Amino acid sequence: MSGKIITLSHGNGGRRSHELIAKLFVPALGHPELARLADAACLTINGTNMAFTTDSHVISPIFFPGGDIGKLAVTGTANDLAVMGAKPLYLSCGLIIEEGFEMDKLELIIKSMSEAAEDAGVHVVTGDTKVVEKGAADGIYINTSGIGMLSERAPRGLSSVAVGDAVIVSGSMGDHGAAVYAERESLLIKAPLHSDCDCVFPLIERAMAVCEDIRIMRDPTRGGLSSTLNEFVMDQPFGIEIHEAAVPVNDPVRAICELLGFDPFNLANEGKVVMVAPYEKAANIIEAMRSSPLGSEASIIGRVTDRYPGRVCMKTVVGGERIIDMIVEEPFPRIC
Amino acid sequence: MSGKIITLSHGNGGRRSHELIAKLFVPALGHPELARLADAACLTINGTNMAFTTDSHVISPIFFPGGDIGKLAVTGTANDLAVMGAKPLYLSCGLIIEEGFEMDKLELIIKSMSEAAEDAGVHVVTGDTKVVEKGAADGIYINTSGIGMLSERAPRGLSSVAVGDAVIVSGSMGDHGAAVYAERESLLIKAPLHSDCDCVFPLIERAMAVCEDIRIMRDPTRGGLSSTLNEFVMDQPFGIEIHEAAVPVNDPVRAICELLGFDPFNLANEGKVVMVAPYEKAANIIEAMRSSPLGSEASIIGRVTDRYPGRVCMKTVVGGERIIDMIVEEPFPRIC
Repeated sequence: MSGKIITLSHGNGGRRSHELIAKLFVPALGHPELARLADAACLTINGTNMAFTTDSHVISPIFFPGGDIGKLAVTGTANDLAVMGAKPLYLSCGLIIEEGFEMDKLELIIKSMSEAAEDAGVHVVTGDTKVVEKGAADGIYINTSGIGMLSERAPRGLSSVAVGDAVIVSGSMGDHGAAVYAERESLLIKAPLHSDCDCVFPLIERAMAVCEDIRIMRDPTRGGLSSTLNEFVMDQPFGIEIHEAAVPVNDPVRAICELLGFDPFNLANEGKVVMVAPYEKAANIIEAMRSSPLGSEASIIGRVTDRYPGRVCMKTVVGGERIIDMIVEEPFPRIC
Repeated sequence: MSGKIITLSHGNGGRRSHELIAKLFVPALGHPELARLADAACLTINGTNMAFTTDSHVISPIFFPGGDIGKLAVTGTANDLAVMGAKPLYLSCGLIIEEGFEMDKLELIIKSMSEAAEDAGVHVVTGDTKVVEKGAADGIYINTSGIGMLSERAPRGLSSVAVGDAVIVSGSMGDHGAAVYAERESLLIKAPLHSDCDCVFPLIERAMAVCEDIRIMRDPTRGGLSSTLNEFVMDQPFGIEIHEAAVPVNDPVRAICELLGFDPFNLANEGKVVMVAPYEKAANIIEAMRSSPLGSEASIIGRVTDRYPGRVCMKTVVGGERIIDMIVEEPFPRIC
């Protein structure tokens, strides 16, 4: 890759991010768990099956409607464990702070982390603080890594996906991305936009209680629903067909997207889960998730198909069909 | 802490870092493992005793004599596990990269991580990459978190320290700090300065093989030997007395310190361990560590005493005594 440089698109969760991981990190570091490119690694230590994951949070602005970087750092990593079918247990917290950052803001952020950890039932047990000179960071960056205990009902992954399986989302798409974008650009929008930032483990617990063979789960963060669905089908003998009308999108999110020409399916979510499960169990899963306020809009949005291997196809509300691709260029840097 | 701001000294591993952790992080996040302020948390998951730790690496320059940020990120976290008496097993890798960073440099760094992981016997199993706009970071920052399996001989910690115990270092002090400082300031020094950046677990394994009751171990990174020894005695009913002449310091490090007025005991190390152990077993530990090239200069540097509770006192080469304090202001930001 001589002469090349890193661009924002290498960090957006879309196609360039995947290329960087697949062409540089996986061959160099070479561990099979890394090569699976899941949201967390699954490890067996001394007979105990665990999940282990990491996420650096660089969101801008650090305070946004519905949360802040502290809440996001806890829920983001807890969610990466949860979607592997693991109960989040312990977190680490690595802070990189810019010299001159206000102590008051730091206190608010740590308080948010504390509250989010309590809500998610996780404990922050180890930490590290680095301070860099003014201009060498933008306020504060927070890495959290997490350990969770894998359920016996943890999804088996992509190899277990079958044609005809249901594709399910736990709620509305695009809330986090839209809220952060509006806050960052100081858009004067009357409609209330709130990040969905929250821990999804309670929803997943409910779903796993009624279905022992969920195939795969992801939280559709950077790159949104589009990237997550494309990750499911990439290099697979199956595709996914979704129905635009079946995907819940809140009105304010739809409005800002229409105004600015964005696609809500490309916007980040921070409190949602996308899953593939046997079709005959989908109704039970929807019912189970809807029993929580967090999952009140849980919906079946489509099916796994052999019609378009490796592709995600959407039936539009006006009756057409279009291919949904991963994002390539960065519409929203530093969304998480 | 209203109106206050974060300064470089909050991240230097000295007194202000400790105050920030003790007054803000521990009360807010409140887990007993965090409150222990050890290099790693000790957790029991499903009957398995593990250590879990995190470190963000923000070193400048990213390439230095004896290593680079990639090697440092692996060995730094592996060492935090090792000094808890845990065999390092798995690492996560969270990258924050500045837009425009050269892909060639990234490849070199990932290659270093790979080699260091192989040397240390650890596996990088999960990762995350964020890219921030030009000017929002300084090249690359790397967080690594790690999981290790605790030995049955893992040190019991400060409560097991007894008056009369030996204080041992595994080798020369200050090499990393001196090498990075010289590289950063482009000092034209003929004497070869090399970081000691390396994994200390093989040394610790040797020491634990001959001593089942090592009291406590730390790797003296930020803040150097001075801060580590002060961490041992802080709020304790005992103090530590060391002999300046007994502490190994390489000639080039001594020379640069004399030239610039630095104290080698305040300089960071990245491949050394400081331990407290029963005095009668100290000779065996020294012999065991010296059987490895990494530990060829292992030395007893002092004893635990009841003469100065909470203090570190040094007998100087000229026959005087002086109190060694933690560093307060930052002599070397971004040393790791």
